[in-house]
Amino acid sequence: MTKRTNRQYTLAARPRGPAKLSDFKLVEVDVPELRHGEVLFRNTLFSIDPYQRNLMGNGSSEWPTIDIGDPMGGPTVGVVVESRNPDFGVGDTVQSWVGWQDFAVSNGSDLRKIDPGAMPVSTALGPLGLTGFTAWYGMTKVHDFKPGGTLVVTGAAGSVGSAAAQLGKLRGLRVVGVAGGPHKTAFLRDELGLDEAVDYKAADFKEQVARMLPDGIDAFFENVGGPIFPVLMEHFNTDAKMTVCGTIADYSETELPKGTNYLPRLITLIHYRFVSIKAFATPYVMDTFPEFLAEATPLVTSGQLKYGEEFVDGFERLPTALMTLFDGSHSGKKLIVRND
Amino acid sequence: MTKRTNRQYTLAARPRGPAKLSDFKLVEVDVPELRHGEVLFRNTLFSIDPYQRNLMGNGSSEWPTIDIGDPMGGPTVGVVVESRNPDFGVGDTVQSWVGWQDFAVSNGSDLRKIDPGAMPVSTALGPLGLTGFTAWYGMTKVHDFKPGGTLVVTGAAGSVGSAAAQLGKLRGLRVVGVAGGPHKTAFLRDELGLDEAVDYKAADFKEQVARMLPDGIDAFFENVGGPIFPVLMEHFNTDAKMTVCGTIADYSETELPKGTNYLPRLITLIHYRFVSIKAFATPYVMDTFPEFLAEATPLVTSGQLKYGEEFVDGFERLPTALMTLFDGSHSGKKLIVRND
Repeated sequence: MTKRTNRQYTLAARPRGPAKLSDFKLVEVDVPELRHGEVLFRNTLFSIDPYQRNLMGNGSSEWPTIDIGDPMGGPTVGVVVESRNPDFGVGDTVQSWVGWQDFAVSNGSDLRKIDPGAMPVSTALGPLGLTGFTAWYGMTKVHDFKPGGTLVVTGAAGSVGSAAAQLGKLRGLRVVGVAGGPHKTAFLRDELGLDEAVDYKAADFKEQVARMLPDGIDAFFENVGGPIFPVLMEHFNTDAKMTVCGTIADYSETELPKGTNYLPRLITLIHYRFVSIKAFATPYVMDTFPEFLAEATPLVTSGQLKYGEEFVDGFERLPTALMTLFDGSHSGKKLIVRND
Repeated sequence: MTKRTNRQYTLAARPRGPAKLSDFKLVEVDVPELRHGEVLFRNTLFSIDPYQRNLMGNGSSEWPTIDIGDPMGGPTVGVVVESRNPDFGVGDTVQSWVGWQDFAVSNGSDLRKIDPGAMPVSTALGPLGLTGFTAWYGMTKVHDFKPGGTLVVTGAAGSVGSAAAQLGKLRGLRVVGVAGGPHKTAFLRDELGLDEAVDYKAADFKEQVARMLPDGIDAFFENVGGPIFPVLMEHFNTDAKMTVCGTIADYSETELPKGTNYLPRLITLIHYRFVSIKAFATPYVMDTFPEFLAEATPLVTSGQLKYGEEFVDGFERLPTALMTLFDGSHSGKKLIVRND
């Protein structure tokens, strides 16, 4: 057995505000020898997701965080290079949660075997991975969104948002997607087939919203937060149901905005219109992952659930790839870093 | 049969902001003759409740409203003065929903017969009426508040709040009441037996909150809204559950406050800590009223569920009685107007 070196990006510091390069540290460690029942794999693809900012620690969050000095977390796809586990053979493709490191050892219990002949293996990080699972759980297990109602999805051109919006269409909802810029809204209408798409960057955003929501909002899938929500919430119908999946606009905020305080208005709307708001965190509901896979796999293979991907080459690009998720430069497609 | 005249306070205008005297109109109409199956009663007690401001119309509310020209709504207690309905005899005490008028005719289906020998009849407007029902429904049917957790009740010295807080104690929760001023907090601790009472008018309100919530908030019963909520919400625990029963501080607001915008913070807290927020409206859940009565009656008769009452004499005082509910002069006890 050759002695192998393992590169890891560990968490060097908990950022206050946006993540910086200095919050990560590149280290090299030896790959341990396998014990009986263990398997060694080399990561080939790393998923880049907004929730990874939370993994680095955000003051008031109850999401799991990574300890300082541990490798950054997140889903990966890898290939088995050694095995002392009868369930895994060399060359097998596996999806893991070991995060930002070249190699990892597992007893197999946290690995999902992927069939590279069935679908591109990158889908195990996208529509058939955590991204799709997040959308599916938020659309099906948090609230019972009734067919026929109007669903609004913010961040609808993003990887989770686009999956949620399409699942809404498949469930028989009228779906209005919110995204930034005419390219994204065209994508929502023309590629994803949403009923309407609102450009939150447009000068007439408020008027667009009013025009596209003649019957109000029955279901709301929130990925964004920030200043656009107060405009949308005014359109809540009686018994509207809102799922908070993420608040990407606010993850890295260190100070609250000044100006009009919309909090009393939201509480009043909840009171006046019996709005119900819930949230969820995928790390705590992974027991439903097999149910998700069973439902989503035929939708992805048949092309009913579309997805976009963008690849970045190079292990050393992992930190900047995560940072660009939040700076507005990202296209909205699923971002995956390929290991050289 | 004597010709009788019926005084009514009708809705003259929908207020913008706080209700004014000119929003009500005193009119006199004839009492119609009874048809077969009908009963005529004279109202002796009128319940004064914050939600009556909503009945007058609030721009974005889905609560039922009164039409202009119709009598102001609300629960009453009355005595039957004529009956062509075999289920009701002259002298029977009834609880109705006919609002601000001396007399009313009913076919009996919307009347509840009250036994004046069992309890003071005013309890049919308080702990065994809409007030108690509101507290009971919000505490038992909206969320499942787990025993052992910490419950915060705002407006805890109010009629709904004090019932909710005591129901919380009876359910095995640690209950922290929020009210304004040392008299009310002493009442919460000494009379109602709450675990802690916070004075939101105190200069050290924020510190009091931190001291009295060492284990955070698991359950929240919101009656108030306004500026104290952003202080409290920071103490939400994972999976905290919040029931919005009312937002008395905001009912009559016509403009949102300026300063820090706490809305993104609430959405972030919901996301980070999986907080769940729901509301309810008693007019739509009256089918559970019998279940409430069966549970609450023994609690009230045994003295386990305490209540305070304040009486005002004179039909003509109805409008001002409602207006004082919102101007801070009210003691927090259940306010009932007695007909002369």
